[in-house]
Amino acid sequence: MPSQIPADSVGLVDPQSAYFDEPLPLRSGRTLPSYTLMYETYGTLNAERSNAILICHALSGHHHAAGFHSESETKPGWWDAAIGPGKPLDTHKYFIVSLNNLGGCHGSTGPTSVDPETGEPYGPDFPIMAVRDWVKSQARLADRLGIEKWHAVVGGSLGGMQALRWSIDFPDRLDRCVIIAAAPKLTAQNIAFNEVARQAITSDPDFHQGYYYKHDTLPRKGLALARMLGHITYLSDDSMREKFGRDLKTGKLNFNYEIDFEVESYLRYQGERFSDSFDANTYLLMTKALDYYDPAADFNDDLSQCLAGSRCKFLVVSFSTDWRFSPKRSKEIVDALVRSQKPVTYLEVDAPQGHDAFLFPIPEYFSILRNFLAQETRHAQ
Amino acid sequence: MPSQIPADSVGLVDPQSAYFDEPLPLRSGRTLPSYTLMYETYGTLNAERSNAILICHALSGHHHAAGFHSESETKPGWWDAAIGPGKPLDTHKYFIVSLNNLGGCHGSTGPTSVDPETGEPYGPDFPIMAVRDWVKSQARLADRLGIEKWHAVVGGSLGGMQALRWSIDFPDRLDRCVIIAAAPKLTAQNIAFNEVARQAITSDPDFHQGYYYKHDTLPRKGLALARMLGHITYLSDDSMREKFGRDLKTGKLNFNYEIDFEVESYLRYQGERFSDSFDANTYLLMTKALDYYDPAADFNDDLSQCLAGSRCKFLVVSFSTDWRFSPKRSKEIVDALVRSQKPVTYLEVDAPQGHDAFLFPIPEYFSILRNFLAQETRHAQ
Repeated sequence: MPSQIPADSVGLVDPQSAYFDEPLPLRSGRTLPSYTLMYETYGTLNAERSNAILICHALSGHHHAAGFHSESETKPGWWDAAIGPGKPLDTHKYFIVSLNNLGGCHGSTGPTSVDPETGEPYGPDFPIMAVRDWVKSQARLADRLGIEKWHAVVGGSLGGMQALRWSIDFPDRLDRCVIIAAAPKLTAQNIAFNEVARQAITSDPDFHQGYYYKHDTLPRKGLALARMLGHITYLSDDSMREKFGRDLKTGKLNFNYEIDFEVESYLRYQGERFSDSFDANTYLLMTKALDYYDPAADFNDDLSQCLAGSRCKFLVVSFSTDWRFSPKRSKEIVDALVRSQKPVTYLEVDAPQGHDAFLFPIPEYFSILRNFLAQETRHAQ
Repeated sequence: MPSQIPADSVGLVDPQSAYFDEPLPLRSGRTLPSYTLMYETYGTLNAERSNAILICHALSGHHHAAGFHSESETKPGWWDAAIGPGKPLDTHKYFIVSLNNLGGCHGSTGPTSVDPETGEPYGPDFPIMAVRDWVKSQARLADRLGIEKWHAVVGGSLGGMQALRWSIDFPDRLDRCVIIAAAPKLTAQNIAFNEVARQAITSDPDFHQGYYYKHDTLPRKGLALARMLGHITYLSDDSMREKFGRDLKTGKLNFNYEIDFEVESYLRYQGERFSDSFDANTYLLMTKALDYYDPAADFNDDLSQCLAGSRCKFLVVSFSTDWRFSPKRSKEIVDALVRSQKPVTYLEVDAPQGHDAFLFPIPEYFSILRNFLAQETRHAQ
């Protein structure tokens, strides 16, 4: 934590957990007999229980979206820029709920959790989650918190895909849906990058078919490689040029196979840091959830048909230099919404940061987010 | 070889080798004491020795650019589409020379060759080659073949970078320079992809710091990963969508970590096939040569100044969906040539294949290539 908590921070927060012993039937055909969801809340639920906003996280995210866990924590939650008093997700007005998804590695039930049937960690036997499974588990968390209807469901990247799924699966349980830097489904190229990341992890001899906990090892190298690759796809070509260009680490070319360029050093650092804090089985699971996501598949590949039952207002935001999920992909969602005559606001933000832009406090983006959340909804249905 | 040799094929060809015992001083400060270059020729050198064209290969290329090595070979050389009787690189008119670069793994001296000083394979101790070193070795091959001046030097991708280097380092030794799908230097993003590929190889426990020959192993997994990643950058998002879309290997999602999508299967196959036939140390070396390439660095980053001494005509070709070296990057070369008042023809070909387009017989592209090679040059200098 910084020596003084900033005035617009939610301050110190305590993660909470909710245990569910009701079995959760999954898209895969399997069932999770019981599970725990780890979550945080910021702000206060009003008497009408009408001011709650759900935050859905992206591939490597978790419940800790804002504030600080302790006085020794130097960095706030992952979306602290957007959440706090006076910020777009204003904790003076809204009650924000942020959770770690099932299959995660930050406290919610996942591969590192003990399988009650075996007494051992699930490891690679943890069921692969589909986005619809997460949304179902999030609806149960809403029940537990006494929230019948979300003021909004908000997410970036894989989080945006969850928000979209909410509007399809629980049309009566949200007033607003905010889909940021997302896509209606992955392309072959997106899947290809995920597959290389998975192969990097599973090829690591320390992976042991996913049973690395038993071997007291971690597939660090593979996970670091996966993260390095992911990282390239989160940044734009321009932002990497801006940040690193061809700057040399030691001022000269080494003519050996050590680090020559700053960008190499940065990527290695990112990979190593990530592999210290993230679970490899969770990474595999999250990439599969991404690959599998395709809500229109059940509707003759017609997304507008798939969205026909939705009853919320939509905000779709994309970023000009995002090449992981480019503006073109966001527009596919917008087009489907328009075709099915749903109220939708679309903004393509001119931003140099690539896919990562969704995490940045870009004025135009934050302003539309703030205004959209404050807009009245008409309950015509 | 197909049951009948096509009429426009150069037919059966025999690779040749040239041994040089004159030491080659390298950009790295090291010296290669002696070396062999493996090459092939197609067509006949005319009496004036004025019809010779040099083909420079890309990252994983080699000397076998056209025709068949034997009757059992099912696929012709890598640029057979362009080289042969009546083809743009017309063997009725031209004498085509194609070589394997130093550091390669197809017969020219490289990491798998025996270091005369130790009697062991060079392995990771083979000197890292710079593009200018290759060009110097190619000039010596030209001397050996009695070719004082190339009718043209032609290359795609890393091959195009060699062609550009020829025009800078040996301005009197080529009449035409053809630079296809190339860039004047790598961006941070390009370097980042190379670094992930290198890390994949060096992290493989079978790599043994590059001394895998001694351990009777090969870092197959790492090399396969590097190739899978490379492959994604060679194809366009569109071409992958066209080729694979979200087609499922078994018609359904498996909900396990096996192959779900056709694109995963294709990539794994490409990776495995490559790792059977390519040397990992060569792969590392080639990516470093790419990273290091930056001819303008010695000229205050001014490429036009760097090209001031060039005396050939230039053809620069780019492909609309190439995102590895996009048309924007080719235009940087064109702009520099224009600024230094060199004769340059530029074509951006509308092609869906991404970076790989340079290997395809696209009519507009082949037509300009053919015409450019046939054009008279005026020796005004």
